[in-house]
Order: sequence, then C-alpha cells, then structure tokens
Amino acid sequence: MSEPIRLEPDALLGLLAGSTTRYEKRLNELEGLYRDDVAFRAALESDDGEPVYWVVASTPDDEAGALTIGMSVLRPGRIGDEFAMTRGHIHVHHSAAELYYGLAGRGVMLMETTDGRSSAIEITPGVAVHVPGHWIHRSINVGDEPFTTLFCYPSDAGQDYRIIGDADGMASIVVTSGSDQGWELRDNPDHRPYGGVPR
Amino acid sequence: MSEPIRLEPDALLGLLAGSTTRYEKRLNELEGLYRDDVAFRAALESDDGEPVYWVVASTPDDEAGALTIGMSVLRPGRIGDEFAMTRGHIHVHHSAAELYYGLAGRGVMLMETTDGRSSAIEITPGVAVHVPGHWIHRSINVGDEPFTTLFCYPSDAGQDYRIIGDADGMASIVVTSGSDQGWELRDNPDHRPYGGVPR
Repeated sequence: MSEPIRLEPDALLGLLAGSTTRYEKRLNELEGLYRDDVAFRAALESDDGEPVYWVVASTPDDEAGALTIGMSVLRPGRIGDEFAMTRGHIHVHHSAAELYYGLAGRGVMLMETTDGRSSAIEITPGVAVHVPGHWIHRSINVGDEPFTTLFCYPSDAGQDYRIIGDADGMASIVVTSGSDQGWELRDNPDHRPYGGVPR
Repeated sequence: MSEPIRLEPDALLGLLAGSTTRYEKRLNELEGLYRDDVAFRAALESDDGEPVYWVVASTPDDEAGALTIGMSVLRPGRIGDEFAMTRGHIHVHHSAAELYYGLAGRGVMLMETTDGRSSAIEITPGVAVHVPGHWIHRSINVGDEPFTTLFCYPSDAGQDYRIIGDADGMASIVVTSGSDQGWELRDNPDHRPYGGVPR
C-alpha cells in the first residue's frame, strides 16, 4: 500500500516535485514526425540537443484503479509551417481516458478516432480537456512559451506510439495561420486511414 | 464513443463549464459529522440553507479505464474547533486512486488506512495530492475562502461514505491551532478502529 504523494508542478522550470519517472524526447528522435523534411534537417543542424519535450510522472501502484499523474512540457517551435508537437498515442487499452489540465503556455489537444472523427481543443492555463477512451491524441504547442499540462490516466492504459506513424501522420495537421499567433487545422495529404495496410 | 470535452473551472464562482453532474450537501444533511453537537445545533439555527459543499463532474463513459473529472468546492467555516469538511469516503473498489489539484483556497487532504496509517497534506493553488488506493480521504477547508480542487478518479471507483460514520469519525481531526490561521491534527477520542463492530 503506497503512501500519499504531494506533487507540486513548477511550470516555469518544467519540474514536478514528488514525481519519480522521467521520459524525454530530443529532436533527433523525432524523424518523420513533421511533413517538411528540409525544414527538419535544417532544425537538426542548429539543434541545441536539449529535449523538445519531457514527461515527469508519479506511478506508485500497478493494481486496478491505479493512476499515473504527471506533467508534460513541450517547448515552442516550428518545423516548416507545423508547430512543435508530441508523437501522440492511443492507449493500448483503447477504452482508457485521460485528463489534461493547462498549467502554462498555449497548446492544442488534437484528437482523432480510427473511424475518422476529429476534435481539436485549445488549452490555456486553467482549461482542462477530458480525452475519452478510443481517441488518438497529441499535444501541439501553438504559442511562444513552453506548453505545460498536468495529466492523469489509468496506470494500466499503455501508450501505442506507432498508430500515427503507421498512418503516415494524423488526418489533420496544426499549422500557422495568416494572422499573428494564429493556428489552423489543415488536412494532411499524406495520411492514410488508421489501421490500413502499411505502404 | 464519447466526444472530447472541454472543461473550464471558474474557481471563484464554483462552476465547471462542461460538467454534467452535480452533487451537493447542506448543513442539515451533515448531522453527526462534527464532534461538537451544541455548536452544530447553533450553526443549523443560523444556517442560510445554501450548500456547504458541492461536486460538479464529467463522466462521459462507464467502460473500463473511464475517468470522472470534476471540481469540488467546500465553503469555509468552523463547527466548534473543527474546520468545515466533507463526509469523506473510501472507494468501493479499494484499489482505485484519485488526484486532487488545488485551484483556490487552502485545505487539507486527510487520509487514513483501515490498519491505522495516517497522512495529512495541505493543498493550496498549484499543489496536487496523489491519493493511492486503499486510503480513506476527506477534504477540510482550513482557510477563510472557498477551498476548490480539480479531481480525477476512475469512473468505476465508487464511493463508500459509511466507513467513517461507522467508525465514529476518522482517527484524526483537524482543528484550529493557537496561532492565527493555523490548523493542527488531534486524536479523535470517539474514533473506533475501522471495520470494528458498530456500537
């Protein structure tokens, strides 16, 4: 039986006091994530080697009903006209839901189902998104500051990171719009139906 | 398959845009919660009839891995030397955990196990508590403003509200301390071991 845990996010520094696990991704691990390969190569050449995003979390138990609570930090940036994003995933147990609550910055939770439904919800500090089961989801930083969220999901949910790559990306991409600091959804011409036959 | 839900807490007004359920408790439903019966009667006589606390939430699904996400608002007050509190509960599925994240005010999450362990963690805005499975837990408002938290738990957790009453209260009580705005834990002399034979 685990002890209760006090967790205190420091959104400015991207730290979560009380967390015990850390997961991070650097730009050189994100090949193929963005559509503009020339822009990606250029970004890699000037890359500082620091993580693009990281996830710190608390997972004290593995029994039924256990929760993983943590914080996700995604640095701002663009590759071509696409904003910085996480790889995204669907839960291995498809019916597992997830909470994201905005702590800092400005982002979008892009969500899609394998049968073609789509939803994009902007998250700013104080806004939460309830991601139900069965939705593929990805965080995108559409602002100029780190985009930081508190999250919570069933510890046995599991993350399937391959589903998006196998479909050559999500059906929608989040790109800069003409107006200042704007974003918009655009159809991803490379996308093939989820669960289709790999090329 | 449910649609994603945008939830926006208004901590000042105690509202959660996007929520679909509401649960509330008035003082006249809380007989026996506080030790000082004379003070409780006096409070009832001057009671304004408004809820002492309420819980608004989003529960879009009932399948495995579904989450209930919501907001709890507990008004400030004292009955005798005890601060305003919720009834408290243990999850029917004992192994179900819960997240509480402070949005406004100042409170304490008081947690106990049936085998005698105890923990009390103060929650202020920006502080989260990870309540693991098997812990009885109750919110207590030790400040002068509403104590408001965002919470998240597995939708199939279930709430057993009787366990505390059957034990004549939790093992510890949270009372005013000598210093200004202070609180302290004190042993509850009425408490009997959890799961014991009712008097």
